Amino acid sequence: MRPYVTVNLAMSADGKISTRERRQVRISGPRDFGRVDILKAGQDAIIVGIGTVLADNPSLTVKSPALREERRRAGKDEDPVRVVVDSQARTPPGADILRKGTGERIIAVAESAPGERVERLRDRATVLVAGKDRVDPDRLLRLLHDRGILRVMVEGGGTLIWGFFSRALVDEFCTFVGPVIIGGKDAPTPADGEGFVREGDFVLLDPPTVTECDGGVILRWKVRAAG
Amino acid sequence: MRPYVTVNLAMSADGKISTRERRQVRISGPRDFGRVDILKAGQDAIIVGIGTVLADNPSLTVKSPALREERRRAGKDEDPVRVVVDSQARTPPGADILRKGTGERIIAVAESAPGERVERLRDRATVLVAGKDRVDPDRLLRLLHDRGILRVMVEGGGTLIWGFFSRALVDEFCTFVGPVIIGGKDAPTPADGEGFVREGDFVLLDPPTVTECDGGVILRWKVRAAG
Repeated sequence: MRPYVTVNLAMSADGKISTRERRQVRISGPRDFGRVDILKAGQDAIIVGIGTVLADNPSLTVKSPALREERRRAGKDEDPVRVVVDSQARTPPGADILRKGTGERIIAVAESAPGERVERLRDRATVLVAGKDRVDPDRLLRLLHDRGILRVMVEGGGTLIWGFFSRALVDEFCTFVGPVIIGGKDAPTPADGEGFVREGDFVLLDPPTVTECDGGVILRWKVRAAG
Repeated sequence: MRPYVTVNLAMSADGKISTRERRQVRISGPRDFGRVDILKAGQDAIIVGIGTVLADNPSLTVKSPALREERRRAGKDEDPVRVVVDSQARTPPGADILRKGTGERIIAVAESAPGERVERLRDRATVLVAGKDRVDPDRLLRLLHDRGILRVMVEGGGTLIWGFFSRALVDEFCTFVGPVIIGGKDAPTPADGEGFVREGDFVLLDPPTVTECDGGVILRWKVRAAG
């Protein structure tokens, strides 16, 4: 058993989630921002890769006071559990994801993570060991499910998202496609890593629901059930 | 003066135009195929990069007999002029683009292209020299315009398309976004090359027209006119 997994991201019209220097760029606008906040507030946990934490230092908190209040009234923390996939325990103890907002933080590390760094993070987060040399997304999702986490959103980056797609662990793929061209063979994309080589291995999606928004378009794809 | 430039391509939902091995894959379906054939038949020339010629050996002919007939009745060749951007004159003399279909073929080379290879291609195509060490897209478009070519479609690949975007030479960007995930940090994307680094340099697009098609979606973006 594993949680329901939604991948959510914003990409340029040419399929980039950032520049080759991996600096955070604004691709979407205020309406899409609101949509993502609602999506986030509906999750039990938000998962992000260590690359994104180091590059962007996101807090991943729910921004709308009304949505925070709604979660509180439902007996939840105002923010979903925030999970960093961080095989070698490199999350800076002062990272915004640890400092800002409420609720549990989980750092998912590998067995090979340096003990000293792991211990330092234990003061600020729950540490889960979920793999030998690298965090295994299957194992992580099972551990989260065991903790009562039934819905997760994967924020990125592209390497982590590939890890989920390559193991058939994604249920839904939401992209805001924004009205800019970024370019760059080394710019990060929604799914990096090795990539599929055989056409028969591609992950297949059902036709998307399409919503025009902020000068771009939101495409919400569900992964086609095996069949 | 330069022709009106439309970039057209099919990409996966995660922004890839092929796998990392650059093998041709089917992303779109029959309806999108028909749309591209109509778009193609309305052009004066189709431009493709040598990488795509070597990888896919496309003929770039108009497929529909009715569209071919229509062009003929309008006093045109059945196929638009087909142009290969091929700085070092590597187009194989037996390539389908030279063998199949009707009408003029143009190989755009750099001054530094090996003379022997250039001579061999002259039997089968018009050779245009359009740059010193590499074909300069600005210069190529001016030369095409001088030959009465007023509308061109750029087919790819990602490196060539980046060359056009980086020099602000694109008017329209049409993408079929297909219902598959390919992944891969080294898989080709709609705009590769160096990429923009500064947000202020991004090419800005007007809101797209959106058409659902073949289980995916066609996004037709116009490049925003300089303000």
